[in-house]
Amino acid sequence: MEPVPAAEITSRVAALKIALAAADIGLALIRQAADLFYYTGTLADGFLAVAAASEPLLLVRRPQSRLMARQPAWPLAFYKDLKEIPALVAAYGLEPGGALGLELDVIPALLYQRLAQIFPHHPIRDLSPLIRRQRMVKSAYEIGQLRRAAAILDQAFEMAPELLKTGVTELEVAAALEYRLRLLGHQGLIRLRNRDLEMFYGHVLSGTSGLQAAYTDTPSGGLGFSAAFPQGASLKKLAPGEPISIDLGACLNGYVADMTRMYAIKSLPPRAWEAFKVVEELHRIFADQARPGVMPGDLYRRLMKEVRSQGLEEFFMGYGPDRVSFLAHGVGLELDEFPLLTARFPYPLEADMVLAFEPKFFLPDIGMIGLEDTGRITPAGVEWLTLSPRQITVV
Amino acid sequence: MEPVPAAEITSRVAALKIALAAADIGLALIRQAADLFYYTGTLADGFLAVAAASEPLLLVRRPQSRLMARQPAWPLAFYKDLKEIPALVAAYGLEPGGALGLELDVIPALLYQRLAQIFPHHPIRDLSPLIRRQRMVKSAYEIGQLRRAAAILDQAFEMAPELLKTGVTELEVAAALEYRLRLLGHQGLIRLRNRDLEMFYGHVLSGTSGLQAAYTDTPSGGLGFSAAFPQGASLKKLAPGEPISIDLGACLNGYVADMTRMYAIKSLPPRAWEAFKVVEELHRIFADQARPGVMPGDLYRRLMKEVRSQGLEEFFMGYGPDRVSFLAHGVGLELDEFPLLTARFPYPLEADMVLAFEPKFFLPDIGMIGLEDTGRITPAGVEWLTLSPRQITVV
Repeated sequence: MEPVPAAEITSRVAALKIALAAADIGLALIRQAADLFYYTGTLADGFLAVAAASEPLLLVRRPQSRLMARQPAWPLAFYKDLKEIPALVAAYGLEPGGALGLELDVIPALLYQRLAQIFPHHPIRDLSPLIRRQRMVKSAYEIGQLRRAAAILDQAFEMAPELLKTGVTELEVAAALEYRLRLLGHQGLIRLRNRDLEMFYGHVLSGTSGLQAAYTDTPSGGLGFSAAFPQGASLKKLAPGEPISIDLGACLNGYVADMTRMYAIKSLPPRAWEAFKVVEELHRIFADQARPGVMPGDLYRRLMKEVRSQGLEEFFMGYGPDRVSFLAHGVGLELDEFPLLTARFPYPLEADMVLAFEPKFFLPDIGMIGLEDTGRITPAGVEWLTLSPRQITVV
Repeated sequence: MEPVPAAEITSRVAALKIALAAADIGLALIRQAADLFYYTGTLADGFLAVAAASEPLLLVRRPQSRLMARQPAWPLAFYKDLKEIPALVAAYGLEPGGALGLELDVIPALLYQRLAQIFPHHPIRDLSPLIRRQRMVKSAYEIGQLRRAAAILDQAFEMAPELLKTGVTELEVAAALEYRLRLLGHQGLIRLRNRDLEMFYGHVLSGTSGLQAAYTDTPSGGLGFSAAFPQGASLKKLAPGEPISIDLGACLNGYVADMTRMYAIKSLPPRAWEAFKVVEELHRIFADQARPGVMPGDLYRRLMKEVRSQGLEEFFMGYGPDRVSFLAHGVGLELDEFPLLTARFPYPLEADMVLAFEPKFFLPDIGMIGLEDTGRITPAGVEWLTLSPRQITVV
C-alpha cells in the first residue's frame, strides 16, 4: 500500500485553512470519503476538524485499532456519539458565532439536522464549494497518480479488439475488461460526488444501445440488463456494421482516469465516419484551446459553433430532451469533479486541472459516436494522459 | 430485461399510502434509487409523489425519452427546476399544514434545504422509517428474486476451490470470482442505504488480513491495496495453514444475496476449527429460533450467551474497540436493510423477512473464522436461500 506523501497532506490542509479564514468559517467538519482522504491520506468513520488557527484533529468513531496502528497525519480523538464532538473540538479554534462548515451537497439531511442541534449557536455554511475549488487543481503527485490510472486504462483497452466478435454480448465484453482492469490494479470503487449518480466501471454499448439516455447525468447511458440498474452493458449481441463504444474508468490509489474508444466489426455507415471526423476536430480544438485563463463558457461556445457548422447540433451530447450540459468534467478522487466544461461554469481554466473531454454524437438508428480522453491543462494546451490510439478500430 | 410485475408495484404503493395516512404525512416525495425502484419499477432523476388519497405522480427531470417510451406504472410529469414541483403536485393531497415526507437519511442536506424553501408552509418529516419498515417484509416475487441472486452466488462459489493456491493473491481470487458473477448476471452495482458505507463486490481475505477492521460498519474489513479504499482483497498471497474467507454479494434484478464461506490450503490451527464449531452452533440456533414474533434483542442475547459459554466473546464480531453491533442484517434492494439483529432493534421478526446472518470470530494471529448465509424467516424457522456446502473446504 502506497501512502499519500506527508508533505502533500500538509500543504492541502494549509491551503484549506486559508480558504476557511477567507470565508469566515470558524470550523470545518469534513466527513465525505473523498474529501477525508484528500486531507488525511486515510479513511475513517469520522470527521476531520479543521480551523484556520489550529492543527487539524481527526475525530474517529471507527476503526480505532487500525488508525492507532498506522499513525495518520493528524492527532486523533475517538468518539462514540456525535454529542461528544463539541467538547473534543472546543480547543480547536471554533469561535462563538463563527460559522460551522459542512459538506452540504453530500452529507445526509439527518446528519445535518443532528449537527445543527449539537452546534446550536453557529450558523452552518456549505464547505463543498471551497473543497471542490481547491481539489480541481492537481499537484504533481496527483497528476502522477492520474497518469498511472490512465496507463492501466490504456493497457486494458489493448485487449478490446480481440474481444469483439459477432454474437458476443456487451456484458461479456464489459466483464472481460473489468476483470483485466482489476488485475492491473483498479481499486474497483469509483467515487461520485453527486449522490444521484450511479455507475459500475462504465459502459460497453453497441448499435442503438448507445442511444439510450441514462437516468444519471452522463451522455451515453445504455440499456443495462436489470430493470433495477438500467444502464451500462446489456445482453445485446455485437453485430457487424454497428458502432461499439467502450467507456471505462480506472481508479488507482483513489484517482480516476476516464476514456472512451470506438470499434466496429467489419464496417460502419458513412454517417458514423463523418460524425467521427467532427469528434476528432473537436478534440483538436479542445487540445489546442483549453489553456490557463480560458473561460470554460468561451471554449464551450467555440466547440458548439464547430458542431453547428457541421449541422450536427441536434445529435450532440444526447438526443431530444435528454442532453447533458457538459462537454468535459474534472476527474481526480471523484469522477465528477470541477471544472465542468459548460456554458456557465464560473471559474477560468488553470494549469494542472485534469478533465475528461467527451464529445459524443447520437445518430438515430446507428448509435453513439464519440471519443473521450483524460487530459491535463498546460500553458501550451492539453497534455493527454490517456494515450490509446484514437482511430475507430475495425475488426 | 424483466420488468417488475405491475401488481407488485400497485400493492407496494397501496401499503405506503396507508402508512402515510397513519403518520399524517400529506405528501411523500421519494427520490432515492432503491426506494424509487421499489415503488415504480423504474429509475429516473426525479421523485415519486405519493399522497394517501390520490394516484402517485412520477416527476422526472431525465431521461424523458426513455420513460415515455416504456410507460411506467404511474402518470408522468416532467420538470426542469425543483421550483416547478409544488405546482405539479398541487392536486396531489398536500394540505396546508400537512407534513412533507422526505427520505432524510439519504437525501443531501442541500436538497433538503431547497425543498424546505420550496415548501415553506409544510413541516418536513422523515419518510425513511416508514419505507424501511415496509420493505423489510418481502413479497413472494421479491423472495423469488433473492433466491435467484443466492443461486448465482452458489454457482460462483463452486469455482472457489480451484482458485486457491499458495502464492496467488487475494486480489487474483477476488477478480476471478467477480468476473464469474458478472457473467452469471450480477448487475454489478450493489446499493447501500447508509451513505458512509462503501464496498465493491465483497471481500476475499486470508490469514491476518481477516482481522483488519473496516472503516465502514461491517465486521471483517480487509486491507485492500489502495490507501484510498483500504478494504477488501489485498495483494497478500495465499499461504497454507491460514483461514481464507470469501464474502461476496450478488445482485440480480436489484436484489442482493450475501454469503461467506471458509477455505484453507492444507490445514488450519486447532483454534480455528474450534471457533468454526461455535459458528456452526450459532447458525443452528439462528435457523431454529429466528421465527415470526421473536424480538431480535432476545435472539441476539441467546446467541451471545452461546458465545460467552464458549469463552469467545472477546473475539466475536470484531476485536478490541471495533466491534459491530449486529449479527445479521436485512437484505433486499439494499445490502443494509431492516431488520437488524442487534440488542435493541425495535420490531419483532416477521415471516418473509430476509436476513444475512454472519457470526464471525477474530482470532489473533490466525484470522477470521465465520459463515454467512441469506435466509428467509418462516413460522418453522429459517429457510436458507444460499445453499453452498457449509464446511471449511481444505484444498
